[in-house]
Amino acid sequence: MRVPYDQMKAEIKRVYVKYGMNEDKADICAQVHTDSSCDGVTSHGTNRVPVFIKNMQQGGVNVNADPTLEKSLGAIEVYNGNLAPGVLNGIFSIDRAMEIAKEHGVGIVAMKNTNHWMRGGTYGLRAARKGFISISWTNTEPQMPPWGGTEMRLGNNPFVMACPGPGGEPYAVDMAVSLYSNGQLQTTRLAGKKLPYPGGFNAEGELTDIPAEIEATRRVLPMGYWKGSSFSFMLDIVGAILSDGSNVTELAEKNKGSSCVGCSQIYMAITPEMVSQERMIEIITNTTEFVKTSPPMGDGTRILYPGEDFALARAENMANGVFVDDGIWAQIQAL
Amino acid sequence: MRVPYDQMKAEIKRVYVKYGMNEDKADICAQVHTDSSCDGVTSHGTNRVPVFIKNMQQGGVNVNADPTLEKSLGAIEVYNGNLAPGVLNGIFSIDRAMEIAKEHGVGIVAMKNTNHWMRGGTYGLRAARKGFISISWTNTEPQMPPWGGTEMRLGNNPFVMACPGPGGEPYAVDMAVSLYSNGQLQTTRLAGKKLPYPGGFNAEGELTDIPAEIEATRRVLPMGYWKGSSFSFMLDIVGAILSDGSNVTELAEKNKGSSCVGCSQIYMAITPEMVSQERMIEIITNTTEFVKTSPPMGDGTRILYPGEDFALARAENMANGVFVDDGIWAQIQAL
Repeated sequence: MRVPYDQMKAEIKRVYVKYGMNEDKADICAQVHTDSSCDGVTSHGTNRVPVFIKNMQQGGVNVNADPTLEKSLGAIEVYNGNLAPGVLNGIFSIDRAMEIAKEHGVGIVAMKNTNHWMRGGTYGLRAARKGFISISWTNTEPQMPPWGGTEMRLGNNPFVMACPGPGGEPYAVDMAVSLYSNGQLQTTRLAGKKLPYPGGFNAEGELTDIPAEIEATRRVLPMGYWKGSSFSFMLDIVGAILSDGSNVTELAEKNKGSSCVGCSQIYMAITPEMVSQERMIEIITNTTEFVKTSPPMGDGTRILYPGEDFALARAENMANGVFVDDGIWAQIQAL
Repeated sequence: MRVPYDQMKAEIKRVYVKYGMNEDKADICAQVHTDSSCDGVTSHGTNRVPVFIKNMQQGGVNVNADPTLEKSLGAIEVYNGNLAPGVLNGIFSIDRAMEIAKEHGVGIVAMKNTNHWMRGGTYGLRAARKGFISISWTNTEPQMPPWGGTEMRLGNNPFVMACPGPGGEPYAVDMAVSLYSNGQLQTTRLAGKKLPYPGGFNAEGELTDIPAEIEATRRVLPMGYWKGSSFSFMLDIVGAILSDGSNVTELAEKNKGSSCVGCSQIYMAITPEMVSQERMIEIITNTTEFVKTSPPMGDGTRILYPGEDFALARAENMANGVFVDDGIWAQIQAL
């Protein structure tokens, strides 16, 4: 169904306040969930509200906790997230990284003991809209086999890179390291379809594009096979080192039935003061034009700049109401 | 054939000195090429020496130039590489980034107008061996179609992430964004083999594992399809913005028959002083043990930590002499 943006945000806020979050914090969380759905990131938007409430009730989230500074090293600050809501910790972290960047050119906030950040792009887009370049990532509990292995031992660790775009529309890549998310496997299966490309291994150890086969083995494919596997490994250990936080092994212990409770995250903001605004826009617009004017594949796949899918979805959802699964919306209204 | 490490390095140094590089610089370049071959990175090792000499003679490389500081923004310094040899500019940049990190916790050197850095891992491993975490990348001229397109409009932009490892052996991912390098397509074709997984599109627009078909269309696959395509786009524009340097569009103009002349590179070093050495080693060793003890795929693929392949190749090449293609070695000796 379609729900107007303001109505969706107000309803989510109502739920969060009811379950004990203070007004200001509930407002931020509601906006982030609504924005994510509005940008077409249905896997990490409004659908996460019931899960979040469940996590709160199970004690994985300290609803009104705040992060505390553990160590300051010039342009790097290390925080304990104190298991506060991941979205609030994330907003705090990227805002603080931007403050540090104003002083040092670059700012890094490394946060341990935090919670699921929901849509990773939230923080990159926020920095980009305020004029900063940013890089961020989180680690997760085991969700993907390492290359050469068959059991989940690596996170699918989302990695986000964003920068301001011409006309105020940010450019951003927001990618988990697994080729497809669990949500994509599920929705493709429910639609009775195959994946566009093989996304994991079946029980016979062969690559398959049938989502149910991958859900059965839990052998999802890292993007770029061995490349994504090594990338995920590095994101995990570097994230844990910089935040003095938990790595994938420790997150396996902390998340038996939950996701990202106690995880480690990195938020980096960089001021783009080394170039003029004009030159920055020139770099971006001429890359965009060059890339988008490639002859097309011919199968209907559009050539998009990184983040263009968000802008397209937002325009559509703002015009027609934000899309939400009927069942999810009923669940939220019943909370 | 196999050539002892010291002999290989001395021979490469002889060539570089003969073609006008000063002794100290030739020593560094010779060591980097030899180390790359010794670590098993045959695509970006000794084989690059004849190409480098050709680039020098064609004027793409200013053999004894040095980088010059253009702008300093706290923990970020922007340099003009002045088309000096990419390896020397790279060593300068990562060393300078580490110096800045000692003061600010993190240091970024952004360098424009530099040259091919050869093996990207060189700079990450160097920082890791000196106790720093590092992230670096370079842009390149167009070498890969964007997702949805058929003509090369994006670089295959290598991305490197490294950190110190237990026992002094660094952990590192060093990955170009294309699934396979041109060198891998070529060596697989020459060996009369197929790629382990489809690496690009054939003339009919179908995925293929036959290297000659991909070499014919030049439609190499980004790692993770749409993900690698967006990642490459972001690496390109952010690299160009931070260094006030050339983007892929401009590198297309500067590289008609050459590679990476005038490219833009980012070198980031981070001090790991937020954790104790003991905790850092614990994070890395327990992740490694957890990952490596996954039940194997059963097809002979070993589960390696990121960078373990380098350490294994190095041990073998130091024991038996460094492997080099007979023809390449003859070319170098004739220079």
